[in-house]
Amino acid sequence: MDDMLAMGKQILAMQPFSVLLGAELTDFSEKTAELRVPIRKDLMQQHGFLHGGVVSYAADNALTYAGGGALKSAVLTSEFKINYVRPALGEYIVARAKVVYAGKTQAVCRCDVFTIKDAEERLCATAQGTITKIGKSGINGMD
Amino acid sequence: MDDMLAMGKQILAMQPFSVLLGAELTDFSEKTAELRVPIRKDLMQQHGFLHGGVVSYAADNALTYAGGGALKSAVLTSEFKINYVRPALGEYIVARAKVVYAGKTQAVCRCDVFTIKDAEERLCATAQGTITKIGKSGINGMD
Amino acid sequence: MDDMLAMGKQILAMQPFSVLLGAELTDFSEKTAELRVPIRKDLMQQHGFLHGGVVSYAADNALTYAGGGALKSAVLTSEFKINYVRPALGEYIVARAKVVYAGKTQAVCRCDVFTIKDAEERLCATAQGTITKIGKSGINGMD
Amino acid sequence: MDDMLAMGKQILAMQPFSVLLGAELTDFSEKTAELRVPIRKDLMQQHGFLHGGVVSYAADNALTYAGGGALKSAVLTSEFKINYVRPALGEYIVARAKVVYAGKTQAVCRCDVFTIKDAEERLCATAQGTITKIGKSGINGMD
Repeated sequence: MDDMLAMGKQILAMQPFSVLLGAELTDFSEKTAELRVPIRKDLMQQHGFLHGGVVSYAADNALTYAGGGALKSAVLTSEFKINYVRPALGEYIVARAKVVYAGKTQAVCRCDVFTIKDAEERLCATAQGTITKIGKSGINGMD
Repeated sequence: MDDMLAMGKQILAMQPFSVLLGAELTDFSEKTAELRVPIRKDLMQQHGFLHGGVVSYAADNALTYAGGGALKSAVLTSEFKINYVRPALGEYIVARAKVVYAGKTQAVCRCDVFTIKDAEERLCATAQGTITKIGKSGINGMD
Repeated sequence: MDDMLAMGKQILAMQPFSVLLGAELTDFSEKTAELRVPIRKDLMQQHGFLHGGVVSYAADNALTYAGGGALKSAVLTSEFKINYVRPALGEYIVARAKVVYAGKTQAVCRCDVFTIKDAEERLCATAQGTITKIGKSGINGMD
Repeated sequence: MDDMLAMGKQILAMQPFSVLLGAELTDFSEKTAELRVPIRKDLMQQHGFLHGGVVSYAADNALTYAGGGALKSAVLTSEFKINYVRPALGEYIVARAKVVYAGKTQAVCRCDVFTIKDAEERLCATAQGTITKIGKSGINGMD
C-alpha cells in the first residue's frame, strides 16, 4: 500500500461517521479516489435498498478525497450534485471519483457510484462537485 | 399531531438508516417538510463538525418528504444539488424543505438546513432537487 | 434610479451577448437582482417557446448580479444548477435572484425565473449557484 | 454524413436561437453529441470572453441531443448543473455530451465544453443533467 492511500485511510478512520458506515478507502492518488461502503441492513431505506443518503455520502466523500489529492491540502466539499439512476442493491457500493479540473484553491471532480452484486457492477448514481482548500480565513472555504 | 405527520413518522421509522441517525420528522404537509438530526459524536467528521454526509442526508430526505406530500404518492429523489455554506456545529440540524413546483409525476423542491446551537439558528447548507413518483414501470423513477 | 442599479445597467450594456438578447436589469441591490429578457422569435427553440439557453442565461446572469451586489466586487458564476419546470411562453421572462449566503470570496444565491403573459406571472425555472470574487490570482475564480 | 446527424442538423436549423448563435452540430449518435459555437464578439461578456450564457447554452443543447439520441424521441432538458472552470477564449467552443444512463423516459448525460484556440483544446466547463421524453401528457416533461 502506498503512502498516499495509507494517509487517506488514516483520515477516514478519524471520521466517526465513516467508521459508523463501514466505509473503506480502496484507492487514492493525485487524480482519483475510490471508496467502498457495505450494503448493510442498518443503512437501508424502507424498500430494502441502500438509503440514498449513504449513496450521496459515498459520492461526496470520494469527491472530497479526489479533490484533496489534486490540491494536496486539507479540503472540503463546497457543493455537489448527484443523480440517482438505479436503486442500490447487492453486497456493497463503490464510489469512484476523479479530478476534472484543479486550480490553486478549488477542484472540480466527478464521481460514479456502482453497486456490486455477484461480482457484477452497475451504475447507481453519478455526481459532480467543487472541492475547496481549507484556508486560514475560514474552515468552510466560503469565508 | 395530524394524520399526515403521523404517517410520515411511520415511514421514517421504517428506514433503518434514518433510525441509525436519530432523525425525527417534525413537520409534514402538502407543501413542506421538516426533519431534525442530532449532532452526535458518531455522526461527525475529523474536525468535530457534523459530517457533510449527514447534512446531505437530511436535505435529501426532507426534499423527498416535501415532494411526496405534494405528489401524494410514494416517491424518491431523482437528483439534487447541495451547497454547504457553514460547518455544522451545535445540538442538532433542522432541514426545512418546500415545494417549488409540482407536476403530475415530478416535483421540484428546495431545502435549507440550519444548525441549532443555544436556540440560535444558522444556515449551514441549501439544496434543490427533483422528486419523482414511483411508477409501475420501475422503482427508481428512471425506468 | 439609484446608483447601484445605474452601475449594474452600465455593466450589462458592456456585455455584447446581453445586448444581443435585449436583456434589461430592473432591480439591483445588495441582496437582490432582477433581469428581464423579451420572448422574441429569434430567441426561441423549434416548438415556439423561448430557448432553454435564454432561460439559463437569465438565471445565470441574475445570480451573478445578486452575488456581486453582496460581495461588492467584480464576480463571476463558478457553478449553477437549474430546473426547468414549464415552457417559457408569453411576452418576456423575469429572473429574480437573491443572496442566500455571502462569505468573503463567495456567495450562494438562488433565482426564480417567471414568464409574464397578459400581466400574469408563472414560474418557468429555478436555479441555485455559487458566485465568486474575481481575484488577483486569476480571472475565473478557480485559480 | 449519416442519417442521424442529418436529422439532428435539421432540428438545430429549426431553433432560431441556435441559428442566432451560429451553433453547428458536428456529431450525433445514440450515445454522443457534439456541438460547436463560434466565439464571436456579439456573444461575449464585458471582459472579452465568451459569455457564460453561451457556454451553458452549448452544454444544455449538447446534453439534450445526447439524451434524445439515447431515448429515440423528442426530448427536453429537465435540469442540469454546470461548473465553469476557465474563461472561454479562442476561435470556438465545442460541447461534447455523452449518455451516462438511459431509462425508458429519462436519461442522465454529461457534457464537457472545450475552447479551441490555435488547434489546442482546453476544458472550460463541465455539466451533468437529466433529459426527459416529451410525453403526451405535457410538453415539459414535468406534467
